[in-house]
Amino acid sequence: MMSRGTDMSNVKKAVVLLSGGLDSATVLAMAQADGYQCHTLSFDYGQRHRAELDAAHRLALVACVAAHKTITLDLDGIGGSALTDTAIAVPEAPQQGIPVTYVPARNTVFLSLALGWAEVLEAGDIFIGVNAVDYSGYPDCRPAFIEAFERVANLATRAGVEGAGFQIRAPLQNSTKAQIIQAGLRLGVDYSLTVSCYQADVQGRACGRCDSCRLRASGFAAAGVEDPTRYT
Amino acid sequence: MMSRGTDMSNVKKAVVLLSGGLDSATVLAMAQADGYQCHTLSFDYGQRHRAELDAAHRLALVACVAAHKTITLDLDGIGGSALTDTAIAVPEAPQQGIPVTYVPARNTVFLSLALGWAEVLEAGDIFIGVNAVDYSGYPDCRPAFIEAFERVANLATRAGVEGAGFQIRAPLQNSTKAQIIQAGLRLGVDYSLTVSCYQADVQGRACGRCDSCRLRASGFAAAGVEDPTRYT
Repeated sequence: MMSRGTDMSNVKKAVVLLSGGLDSATVLAMAQADGYQCHTLSFDYGQRHRAELDAAHRLALVACVAAHKTITLDLDGIGGSALTDTAIAVPEAPQQGIPVTYVPARNTVFLSLALGWAEVLEAGDIFIGVNAVDYSGYPDCRPAFIEAFERVANLATRAGVEGAGFQIRAPLQNSTKAQIIQAGLRLGVDYSLTVSCYQADVQGRACGRCDSCRLRASGFAAAGVEDPTRYT
Repeated sequence: MMSRGTDMSNVKKAVVLLSGGLDSATVLAMAQADGYQCHTLSFDYGQRHRAELDAAHRLALVACVAAHKTITLDLDGIGGSALTDTAIAVPEAPQQGIPVTYVPARNTVFLSLALGWAEVLEAGDIFIGVNAVDYSGYPDCRPAFIEAFERVANLATRAGVEGAGFQIRAPLQNSTKAQIIQAGLRLGVDYSLTVSCYQADVQGRACGRCDSCRLRASGFAAAGVEDPTRYT
């Protein structure tokens, strides 16, 4: 039986990457249901859809996480994506191959910073909401990438070399969008708080036309539940 | 014979991590000698020894690089190292194991951001001055880490999946500090411009007592050349 005392030494800590979207909100609920004390991490990387940062903050508050941190990164100085470069339009029709909304090395950068924070917190688990079924087509969402990054994490760090090491957990890896939504609803996730749209307005209202909006809307339809998304 | 025209399509581009220290200055000279058009990258991560950022900028100017970028990161908000947390003293005697100057996940974060920039530049090579002979004892300087990161780079990116991919080059990997200095001097590196000290003053003058100063001084002694370091 779990102790209810004040001894914190057996607390399972995790860093959870929280974008403010549907997937990462679900992952946070799953990590909490698994008994993790969660520290959520968001990135202000010059993305168009900055409303997702407000959404992430609200989701963290509602979930009563141990800490929420937003790291500012000047990826916009690097460019190369429709999400960070206003000169590249967000496509509103399906694309072949890796889409222009792909942000170079984004999940590698995010996981690296999560790894640094996890090491300082003595958290052994890092959760990320990547998915390779109903997904974006981004290479850094695939299982082989997650496995390779876990190997890096355990070679790069003091905790990997001298301690218990790290696990990169991607619990949505093999789920459809509908399955993700159904799992989240069972855990009480309020999807009206989440923002998925690549060009959401400042109030977090969605365009309904971009790739991310399309994936989200068909997920709610396939799950057979009402879509709480606010559209412009 | 190499074309001397204005066709840039055959230019070999590289991103070079440039800390402003002795090792990365040598790596930059090696990459240029190998014919790479170099784009240098430094990080302002709240380090005590911020004089190294000025040193990096000067080295980049002197080497006439294609571009020099300094990315600001709030790693100081993550903490956990004597280099970023003023509450942890820089040790002035040799330490056992991984020293307190280890910055959690630093090289993973730096390589990730270098990877993002390399992908946008269409640069296939990333140079890093890590070394595992006369070295710091940091886990993220070892060959196994570099190899694991290269695997991540090629799984994470559009260029890795659809293009020619990336190589992470660590040309100092198996060199002693004396060999590094001798190689750099042959290539014309002006080591008086470099700053290695963990607690250098604002003018870049070294303490002469920290681990990094000790490694550097014994390198010049072993190389049998004059040490141009300015001490406080």
